[in-house]
Amino acid sequence: MSEATQYHTIEGEFPMQHGVLRQPSIAFETWGTLNFQKDNAILLFTGLSPSAHAASSEQDRTPGWWEPMIGEDKPVDTSKYFVICINSLGSCFGSTGPASIDPATGENYRLAFPVLTIEDIARAGHAVIESMGITKLHTVMGASMGGMTAVAHSVLFPEAAESLVSISSSARPVTYSIALRSLQREMIRSDADWNSGDYDGAGPTMGMRLARKLGMLTYRGSAELAQRFGLERVAEARQTNDPFGIDFEVESYLESHAKKFVGAFDANCYLYLSRAMDLFDIADHGGTLENGLARVGAKRALVIGVESDTLFPIAQQRELAEGLDDGERDVEFKALPSVQGHDAFLVDMDRFRPLLCDFFNCSMNQPGQLKSAS
Amino acid sequence: MSEATQYHTIEGEFPMQHGVLRQPSIAFETWGTLNFQKDNAILLFTGLSPSAHAASSEQDRTPGWWEPMIGEDKPVDTSKYFVICINSLGSCFGSTGPASIDPATGENYRLAFPVLTIEDIARAGHAVIESMGITKLHTVMGASMGGMTAVAHSVLFPEAAESLVSISSSARPVTYSIALRSLQREMIRSDADWNSGDYDGAGPTMGMRLARKLGMLTYRGSAELAQRFGLERVAEARQTNDPFGIDFEVESYLESHAKKFVGAFDANCYLYLSRAMDLFDIADHGGTLENGLARVGAKRALVIGVESDTLFPIAQQRELAEGLDDGERDVEFKALPSVQGHDAFLVDMDRFRPLLCDFFNCSMNQPGQLKSAS
Repeated sequence: MSEATQYHTIEGEFPMQHGVLRQPSIAFETWGTLNFQKDNAILLFTGLSPSAHAASSEQDRTPGWWEPMIGEDKPVDTSKYFVICINSLGSCFGSTGPASIDPATGENYRLAFPVLTIEDIARAGHAVIESMGITKLHTVMGASMGGMTAVAHSVLFPEAAESLVSISSSARPVTYSIALRSLQREMIRSDADWNSGDYDGAGPTMGMRLARKLGMLTYRGSAELAQRFGLERVAEARQTNDPFGIDFEVESYLESHAKKFVGAFDANCYLYLSRAMDLFDIADHGGTLENGLARVGAKRALVIGVESDTLFPIAQQRELAEGLDDGERDVEFKALPSVQGHDAFLVDMDRFRPLLCDFFNCSMNQPGQLKSAS
Repeated sequence: MSEATQYHTIEGEFPMQHGVLRQPSIAFETWGTLNFQKDNAILLFTGLSPSAHAASSEQDRTPGWWEPMIGEDKPVDTSKYFVICINSLGSCFGSTGPASIDPATGENYRLAFPVLTIEDIARAGHAVIESMGITKLHTVMGASMGGMTAVAHSVLFPEAAESLVSISSSARPVTYSIALRSLQREMIRSDADWNSGDYDGAGPTMGMRLARKLGMLTYRGSAELAQRFGLERVAEARQTNDPFGIDFEVESYLESHAKKFVGAFDANCYLYLSRAMDLFDIADHGGTLENGLARVGAKRALVIGVESDTLFPIAQQRELAEGLDDGERDVEFKALPSVQGHDAFLVDMDRFRPLLCDFFNCSMNQPGQLKSAS
C-alpha cells in the first residue's frame, strides 16, 4: 500500500446486500484540503483493479493511476478541490475483501466473503465521507466499474452529491461483457492452484495470467493494437523451438502486462469484483432502468464514453445519459473517437483532460497547454 | 467421419512450407456430377473447425455445416455444379494432421508435425482436384480460414480457377485476431493435460473448453448476444451454492457450445490450424499485399464481409476487394449489416443466400423463396 493510504474502520456490523461484515476497513487517499464549508469534495471510485493511489502526493511521490488528471493545475485541480479516492470494498489494496482476515474466525474470508455488489462498494465509500463530516459532495465520479459505483452512490444517497461524472461505464452491463468476465473467472477457477479459493501466496497464477490477457484485449481497441503492433514479429522468436511460443509483438505485449498483474492482485478479490459488475443493474432500484436513474440525486451529470469501447459500448453511455436527462437535470453526453477502447480514459489525455477541465472549471483550459502536459 | 467421406492419398513426399509429409491423406466430400468438359467444379475450403461434410447427400443424410447453401435448388446448385469440399490438411476429420500416425515412426505426429501454413492447406486441396483430372475450376471459394485458403490457392495456382469467392476472410490477419488466437492456444497449452502435445484421449479438455468459449465470443456479435440473451438469468442458478456458477443465460449458451466441442476436435490440430491463420500474409508472395493479390489468377472475384465481424473486420474485406480490383478483374464487394458477427455466413441465410445465388446464377433468386427456405 502507498505511504499516503489512510484507513477508515466501520464500527460494528456493516450490512451488505447478501451478508454482513464485522468492522470492515476502507482504504483511501486524499489530495487537496477540505474547505471550511465542506463543500469542495470529490469522491472518486475506481475500476476493478486500481488501488486508491490515483495520483502522487507529498506522502507518496510515485505516479498514480490517473496522474495526468488529478493534482495542482490539472483538470481535477487539488488546489481547489478535496479529492478522495476509495479502494473498493472487496479489493486487496487495504480495504476489506476476500483476502482479508475475518475477525470472527481469524482466517481469511476467501469464499466465505458475502457476494459483493456495486451497491456495497458505494455504501462502504460513503462511510468514509461520513466519517469526515461531509454531507454534500461537489461531485461523485468514477470510470469503468467506478462509474457504476458512482451511479449507485447517487441513487443510494441522492442528497449526497451535487454532480455525477460517469466515464466509460453504464447503468447495467451488456451481455457480451458478462460473457467475457464470466470466461475470465472460469480461467481462474479452472486453475488447480485456485483450489476453490483456498490457496496460499499467489495462488492461480496461470488462470490470472490468462484472465489478465483477455482483460487487456477487452480494455484495448483493435485499431489501437493494429497501429501499435501491426504484424511485427519479436526478433528472437525464430530462435526458439517452440512452434507456439511468442512470435508476434502483440503476444509479447500481452505477456508483459500479464506478468505485472499476476501476484499483484488477489485472485479471489478479482472474482468478487468481476462478478459485482455482472450483477449491477440500476433497474433493481425501482423496477426499470428509467425508474432507477430517476432516483439519481445529482442535479448535474457528465457522461463520457468512447466509440471503440467494446466492454462498455457507446450505446450504454447514451442509454445512461438519456436516462439521466429527465428535463430538469443538467446532462452532458460526450462520445469520444479515441482508438484505445475501454482504457482510453487512462491514456487518451488529449481528449479526456479538456472535458474534465471544463466540467471542474479548471484554469488551464488552453488545448495547447493540455497537450504538452499530457 | 461421414459415410460420404472420400480420401485421396498423395503418393510419395508432400513438401510443406516448413517440412515434408510422407503420403498424406486428404479427406473430402463431393456433391453433384463433374461434367464431361470438367469445367463445372467448385472447390470449397473450410474454416478452422468444420469437416468436409458441408451438406447432406444420399450417402449421409445428416445436415452439413452449410446445408442451406449447397444442394439441388440451393444457391450453390448441385444439379449444375460439382462441389468438392476439402477437410484441411492438419485437421482431424480424415485428413492427415498432428493427430495422425506418422508412417516413419508408427506414432502420432503430435508436435513433430511441421509448422502448418494456409499455403500447405491450399496445395493439399489442389492435389485432390488434380487427382480428378480437373484443370480448370469454375470457382475456388471459402469462408473464414477457408477464404484465406481460397486466396492462397488462386495465387499458388493462378490458372486453376476462373472465379474466387472469399467470405468473412482476408489477405492477412489483424493484430487483434492474432492476439485472440494466441490466447486461445495458451489456454490449451496451459492445461496440464495437454502435456506438450503428448496426451491420450481427449487431452486438455479444460483448455479446449475455455478456448472454445473465447472462440464463440469472437465468432458472434455483441448485438446478437444482447438480442438473444439480454440479462436473462438461468432459472435454477439461485439454487446452487457456487457464487461463481452459471447464472446468466449467456453463460449457459457458452457452456453448451463448449461441451459439444470438447472431445470432438483434437487439441493439437486446433493449435496448428489456429497458428496457420496467424502466419498467413499474402504479402509473402511478392513482398507486398498489392503484389501478392496481383498474383491471384481468378478473373472474377466476390468478396463478402460482415460489418459486425471483429475477427475479420470489414476493413479487411475492403482491403482484399480493393487489392483484387486491378482494373481488369471483375470484383464485387458486399458489406453486410448482419448482427451475427464472424459466423453470420453460417446463420444469416436471408442475406448470404441471395448473394451466392446471384453469383452462381441459381434459378431460385426470388427473395421470398429464399426466405421461406432458410
